[in-house]
Amino acid sequence: MASAASNAASEVLELADPLPLDGGQRLDGVRIAYNTYGTLNDARDNAILVAHATTGDQYVASQHPITGKPGWWDRMVGPGKPIDTDRFFVICPNVIGGCMGSTGPSSMASDGKPYAMRFPVITIRDMVRAHVILLESLGIETLHAVIGGSMGGMQALSLAANWPHIPRRVLAIASTATMAAQNIAFQEVGRQAIMADPAWAGGNYYDNDTGPDSGLAVARMAAHITYLSEESLTSKFGRRLQDRPDGKPGAKSFGFDADFQIESYLRHQGLSFTTRFDANSYLYITRAMSYFDLDEEHGGKLADAFARTQARFCVISFDTDWLYPTEQSRKLVHVLNAANAPVSFVELSAPFGHDSFLLDVPALDRVVTGFLNQ
Amino acid sequence: MASAASNAASEVLELADPLPLDGGQRLDGVRIAYNTYGTLNDARDNAILVAHATTGDQYVASQHPITGKPGWWDRMVGPGKPIDTDRFFVICPNVIGGCMGSTGPSSMASDGKPYAMRFPVITIRDMVRAHVILLESLGIETLHAVIGGSMGGMQALSLAANWPHIPRRVLAIASTATMAAQNIAFQEVGRQAIMADPAWAGGNYYDNDTGPDSGLAVARMAAHITYLSEESLTSKFGRRLQDRPDGKPGAKSFGFDADFQIESYLRHQGLSFTTRFDANSYLYITRAMSYFDLDEEHGGKLADAFARTQARFCVISFDTDWLYPTEQSRKLVHVLNAANAPVSFVELSAPFGHDSFLLDVPALDRVVTGFLNQ
Repeated sequence: MASAASNAASEVLELADPLPLDGGQRLDGVRIAYNTYGTLNDARDNAILVAHATTGDQYVASQHPITGKPGWWDRMVGPGKPIDTDRFFVICPNVIGGCMGSTGPSSMASDGKPYAMRFPVITIRDMVRAHVILLESLGIETLHAVIGGSMGGMQALSLAANWPHIPRRVLAIASTATMAAQNIAFQEVGRQAIMADPAWAGGNYYDNDTGPDSGLAVARMAAHITYLSEESLTSKFGRRLQDRPDGKPGAKSFGFDADFQIESYLRHQGLSFTTRFDANSYLYITRAMSYFDLDEEHGGKLADAFARTQARFCVISFDTDWLYPTEQSRKLVHVLNAANAPVSFVELSAPFGHDSFLLDVPALDRVVTGFLNQ
Repeated sequence: MASAASNAASEVLELADPLPLDGGQRLDGVRIAYNTYGTLNDARDNAILVAHATTGDQYVASQHPITGKPGWWDRMVGPGKPIDTDRFFVICPNVIGGCMGSTGPSSMASDGKPYAMRFPVITIRDMVRAHVILLESLGIETLHAVIGGSMGGMQALSLAANWPHIPRRVLAIASTATMAAQNIAFQEVGRQAIMADPAWAGGNYYDNDTGPDSGLAVARMAAHITYLSEESLTSKFGRRLQDRPDGKPGAKSFGFDADFQIESYLRHQGLSFTTRFDANSYLYITRAMSYFDLDEEHGGKLADAFARTQARFCVISFDTDWLYPTEQSRKLVHVLNAANAPVSFVELSAPFGHDSFLLDVPALDRVVTGFLNQ
C-alpha cells in the first residue's frame, strides 16, 4: 500500500503489461510518475484523484523540481485546505505523453533512443486508462472523488464515462465534454509554431544542442493569452510601458523591443515555459485534447456516456473564461440531467479567465469543500 | 486632377518632401500607392477616403493583382453600392509600412537596398499624414467621409482628431480609439512568431531564397482565429473531419496531419497569406496598431482629441466581435458625446466575429448607406 505521509519526490509505477491505446497500438514499458499526499485509510475509500491540465504535472502540492515554485494547486490541496490531506489520500499522476516522468515522446523506446514522433498519438481516455492501472496498483477500487480543471476535467469526465464504478464524485472545472472548434484552432496554431521551428527537426532534437524553444515559446504565448480574460489583461497590464533597463520610466522605443509590460510578460512566459516542458509532449497532449469528444466516443449519444455512472457530479465554470465558456459546462449539465445523474452546477464570477481555477477564487474553495463533504 | 472612371491598376504618388514621422525621423522618397473609383466632382466635395485594415491594401474594389480575388470590400464599394461610386469619388491608399506599392520595409532605401528593419517604426498618425498629402495632391480639401474597419477605423479617427477640418463624416467600424492589452498581446505573438523564424534573418531576407514564411503563416493563423467568432467557427467547421486525399470520409489519423477541417482551413489561411504579404510589413503595421492610443496622443484627455472636429460620427460594432468588442466602441461614443460631436452608434448582430465588417451583413450596408446620405 502506498502510505505517503511525506512525499516530496515523485513515485513511479512501472506497468507490467503493455498499455492498450485508443489508436490501436500497445505501449510497452509504461511508467507513471505520480505524487501522493495524505494517507489512504484502512477502508481504502478516502482517495481523491487530481488530474492535471495541459501543461501541469504531478507536483500539485509540492515544490516543482525545475522551477522551484510551489505546487500548481498548492492553495487547494493540503492539510486543512479544500482538498484536505488530513482526511483524504490525494493522488496526482503525470499524464502519459507528458514530460515529468511518465512515459512520453521524450522517453526511451526499446531501441534505447527517445520515441520522439514514433510515440503513438494518445487520447484523454488513454491517459485515464493509465491512471486506472495506477489506482489498481495502489489497491484503490473506488475514489472518493476525481477532480480536475481544464484538461483535468476532461480526464475526470472520461473516468466517469468509461470506468463508472470508480469515482463516487466527479468535479469538472472550466472544462468540456467535447473540444470546440475554437479550442482545436488555437491548439493547431501552437503545434504549427513548434513544427515550423527548424530546431524541431521532425521531433528528433533530443540529442541536439537546442530544441524548438522558439516555436514552443510562441505556442505558449498564444495559449497563455487564451487562459486570461480581457479584463484581467487590462487591469494587470493595460497599456503600461515597461521600465527601461536604466530604471527610467518606460517610453515607446519606436522599435521592436518589449515596450509594453504585457509584451515583456508574454515573452517571459514563453521563454520560461521552455525550461520545464518538452515540445513534443506539447504536440501529443494538445492532440489528445483536440481528439476529446465524449459524445463521439459514445456513438453520438453523450447521455449514454453517463448512463452507468453512480457518481454525483459538480460542474463549475467561470464567467470570464472564454476558452471553455459557461455554455460548454451548461451543455454537459444538460447531458448529465438527461442521464439522471445527480449534478450541481455553478458559474462562478472571477476576473481571471480560464486560469481562474488555479487562482485565488474563494468561492471555488467553498464549492470544492462543500462537494467533497456531501 | 485624378479623374478615374476606370482604374484597375494602382496609381502612385511620389512625395516631393520628406514625410515627418511621430518617431522624430523624416522619411525620404515616400511613395503612396492608391486606387480611386468614381469621379471627383467640380466642387471637389464628393470624395470618400476608405482606409484599409491590418493586412488590407488599396484593392478595395478591384481584383487583387496577386490573389486574383475581388476587392476586399467589393460588396461595399461600387456603382449603386453603399459607397456608391456613381456619386462618390473613392480613394483607397495602401498604408505606408505596407507592401503593395506604398513605401515600407521592403522598399529600396537611398543606398539601393531594401530598408528591412532600417525602416522607421511608424504610427497610425504617420499613415494618415501620408493620406493627407495624397488628398492635397488630388486637390481635395474636405472629404465627404472617411471610412474604415478595424485598423481602418483607427485611421479614420486619427484623421478626425488630427486634421479636424478634413472629414465631414467619420465612420469607424469594429474599431477602437485605444488598442487594448489583449490586442497588443495577440500582435506581440504574431511578431514573435515571425522573428523566431530563422529565415527572418533579422529582417534581411529579401535577397534570400526564402523569407520567414513559416513564422508569418503562424502569425496569420493566430490572428485569423481572433477575427472569427466562436459561433462561426462552430457552425462553419465544428469538429468535422477533413476528407482524405483518396476521397474517403475523414477519420482521425492518430497523427499530426490536419484531421479537422478547421486545422486544414487555418493552415491554408496561413500559407496563402505568405504569397501576398511581406513579413516585415506585418511587424511594422502591427507595431503601429499597438502604439495607437488617441487618449495618450491628447494628453490623456480623449475628448480633447475631438474638440475641434466638425464631423458627424458613426460608430459600429458587432455583437460577436471579441477582438474589438462593443465595449470599446461604446467608450469611444462616450468620448465623442463629451466632445459634443454628433454621433450615432449601433451594435449590429452578425455571426462572423471581427470579420463581420468584411462579410455579408445587410444591416451594415443599410447603416453605411444611411450615414453617407445624412
